[in-house]
Amino acid sequence: MANDKKLVEAITSMDVDFAQWYTDVVKKAELIDYSSVKGCMVIKPDGYAIWENIQKELDRRFKETGVQNVYMPLFIPESLLEKEKDHVEGFAPEVAWVTHGGLEPLQERLCVRPTSETLFCDFYARDIHSYRDLPKLYNQWCSVVRWEKTTRPFLRSREFLWQEGHTAHATAEEAEERTIQMLNLYADFCEEVLAMPVIRGRKTDKEKFAGAEATYTIEALMHDGKALQSGTSHNFGDGFAKAFGIQYSDKDNKLKYVHQTSWGMTTRLIGAIIMVHGDNNGLVLPPAIAPVQVVIVPVQQQKPGVLDKAFELKETLSNFRVKVDDSDKSPGWKFSESEMRGIPVRVEIGPRDIENGQAVLVRRDTHEKTVVALDEIDVKVKELLDEIQHHLFEKAKAHRDAHTYTATTFEEFEKTINEKPGFVKAMWCGCQECEDKIKELTGATSRCMPFKQEQLSDKCICCGKPAKKMVYWGRAY
Amino acid sequence: MANDKKLVEAITSMDVDFAQWYTDVVKKAELIDYSSVKGCMVIKPDGYAIWENIQKELDRRFKETGVQNVYMPLFIPESLLEKEKDHVEGFAPEVAWVTHGGLEPLQERLCVRPTSETLFCDFYARDIHSYRDLPKLYNQWCSVVRWEKTTRPFLRSREFLWQEGHTAHATAEEAEERTIQMLNLYADFCEEVLAMPVIRGRKTDKEKFAGAEATYTIEALMHDGKALQSGTSHNFGDGFAKAFGIQYSDKDNKLKYVHQTSWGMTTRLIGAIIMVHGDNNGLVLPPAIAPVQVVIVPVQQQKPGVLDKAFELKETLSNFRVKVDDSDKSPGWKFSESEMRGIPVRVEIGPRDIENGQAVLVRRDTHEKTVVALDEIDVKVKELLDEIQHHLFEKAKAHRDAHTYTATTFEEFEKTINEKPGFVKAMWCGCQECEDKIKELTGATSRCMPFKQEQLSDKCICCGKPAKKMVYWGRAY
Repeated sequence: MANDKKLVEAITSMDVDFAQWYTDVVKKAELIDYSSVKGCMVIKPDGYAIWENIQKELDRRFKETGVQNVYMPLFIPESLLEKEKDHVEGFAPEVAWVTHGGLEPLQERLCVRPTSETLFCDFYARDIHSYRDLPKLYNQWCSVVRWEKTTRPFLRSREFLWQEGHTAHATAEEAEERTIQMLNLYADFCEEVLAMPVIRGRKTDKEKFAGAEATYTIEALMHDGKALQSGTSHNFGDGFAKAFGIQYSDKDNKLKYVHQTSWGMTTRLIGAIIMVHGDNNGLVLPPAIAPVQVVIVPVQQQKPGVLDKAFELKETLSNFRVKVDDSDKSPGWKFSESEMRGIPVRVEIGPRDIENGQAVLVRRDTHEKTVVALDEIDVKVKELLDEIQHHLFEKAKAHRDAHTYTATTFEEFEKTINEKPGFVKAMWCGCQECEDKIKELTGATSRCMPFKQEQLSDKCICCGKPAKKMVYWGRAY
Repeated sequence: MANDKKLVEAITSMDVDFAQWYTDVVKKAELIDYSSVKGCMVIKPDGYAIWENIQKELDRRFKETGVQNVYMPLFIPESLLEKEKDHVEGFAPEVAWVTHGGLEPLQERLCVRPTSETLFCDFYARDIHSYRDLPKLYNQWCSVVRWEKTTRPFLRSREFLWQEGHTAHATAEEAEERTIQMLNLYADFCEEVLAMPVIRGRKTDKEKFAGAEATYTIEALMHDGKALQSGTSHNFGDGFAKAFGIQYSDKDNKLKYVHQTSWGMTTRLIGAIIMVHGDNNGLVLPPAIAPVQVVIVPVQQQKPGVLDKAFELKETLSNFRVKVDDSDKSPGWKFSESEMRGIPVRVEIGPRDIENGQAVLVRRDTHEKTVVALDEIDVKVKELLDEIQHHLFEKAKAHRDAHTYTATTFEEFEKTINEKPGFVKAMWCGCQECEDKIKELTGATSRCMPFKQEQLSDKCICCGKPAKKMVYWGRAY
């Protein structure tokens, strides 16, 4: 049986070295491979299938709110990128530049899109004329490039996959409403589909998107107590509209500027799933997003009837994403491998089970085993998948809540941040000086001003002046 | 009613200027917009929705044959592109080069992928070890860049969307089988879903893909008698495997090179749909691929009950992709617009229809009107959509067959090519000199050596030597 353990032994324990555990899981669960291009990854079938499930469900939810998909060019001319001042300052230092097309140098260099606000604005300026053309509710699925110095698979890579929604509205109210609507859509998606609890809130001015009037965010807590920004939704007001000249004639025949939003989610979510649910046996996937929900492992598969029964069970379970592992590896190896890959439910079936008209169900999350009668296996698997989905969320929420602290003085704040990985809630006066100082002294960044405010005290933990907002702080990916 | 005609009058007649007709349709049907990046287009919601329907159906068919989706980097280091000699010669002149990341010059320049053979090979060389790892049946959906000098929406653009399948096999036979399997999958897809008949065949050596041992193609005939290469499938043999060192240890413990294939289809297909089925009223979409299959136009919609009835009908027809046009435009305008957008079936319903418990169905392809009872409208719409799908294929096939000619002498060939737009079938000796000469003298290129060979004569039309193959010739996009 020594061989069967090999897969598991190859992973570093998450308590010993969380970063190494993460890298091990990403590789051993065959989600990605490194490529010959520094900072860019190959997303392998199991990793990409998770992304396809994310896309399918998000896309469905977008379309239910009237969003339509489009496709904008990969390249942005330098002059276009420069049109909105804050935006270019935010992105220019980290874009990749195309300078040659074929054998010829280009007259104007092009950047590979780091995000597409400028392209959407350029298009909207031509496409929007009247109030009848509004709102525009567009989204695109694509890859973007940001020339990061240090990179990690899914969490920070030079190229990543995402969706970016870009909307244009007649009024400021409508734009704000859409910004919040999409943030809530993201939050519900994370909680219902990824089983990942999130804090909904607003970014401070320091942390907001380059060019935005307001940025809203959902923040999740990873197993190691670090925060991960998991989705953002921006209200641009009419700033981009003025920079790009996007005007419409209203019902009163007056020319007015549109109000815009943008919102995005990325393959980073796959990193979040790994770091929220994973354990020392590998990946743990929420059933709603798992490429394979049920793996059937035949035991003593060389005995007559065992493989036939396994494939018969696959038919019985055809409402789920189900696979039979009929490879020539040992059952022990297959068990380890199904755990490493995070498959929610394993069905073990051997000659004795068949004789008794039963099978063994093993939960990936708790390793709990149940013996079930074959004639009710579809109902039992359904119940188990629902229970796992629910349990993963509750477990992650309990972990997050247990790692969320409050501080009312700077000393308390510093001690907590240094000794207890997690979120720290604290009051803030609203000045960037205090925010900068806290970051400088403790390494913690403001994650968000949550929608659900609490009055922990009436003073800023940094300067002691009257507090305006309660802020979630944390160390972040 | 003058206003209602405006949309239609804005299109050039296809008999007057086919190229202008195409451009008009692409714009007026709101499939694309031009962008600020020369040669790159904005794909608008109606254009992208056609692509989504193509993707969904192709992806389903791929997966049925065991293909898995992955994602490779956008960039290829110059040294990697250069590994296979023929391949780099074919692509280097038309790639876009990234030379700077952020503010720093790169140590090695990167090209934006024009196709991803080199990236897949680089990955396979690391990922394939044993016969157990084979076959690899991978595909990716992405965009690619080729720095074309002259560009046309969908047909030839500097960036386009596509899928590229890349497989690796243990034997030459298996690779050839997969190459042909995918070509047939493409052909069936074109005929069954896009209602577009295609010729299946093999490219001559002159026309094959850079680095391939054999390229297979499907060729379609556009309304103007020009050919469009609509999908290709390549057998690489072990050429790339040798250049990249992709070896596996076989059951006999010997190290062997893999055999590879690749195959691709692009947004060019949308251009094909337009040019095969379109008419002087605009786009004509096959129901299987139409984003909206049925548009309900209420007549006298201000009259009580008309709009309610229209939305009630939408519910009745919810098995289809259906839309109510309740905008404040006139019915005449709405009729023109639904024709321009190529919506297969229009339902007209007004107060008198409601009184009589009926509605009028109008076919986009033949403009034929039928009055149907409301209580059987779902059945009638289903029948009509099926009939339109079938009719579009038959009509396109009849057009193609009527524009396919044969020539047994060079004079006959030249006269036909010059006077009769379409395919010309002719015998060929197999020498590239003759192929070059025919192209030089007539402007026609060899489209393919069809799988279904005919013996038109026993002599090459060019040199008079013994003929080896019957070839389809034509002017092509």
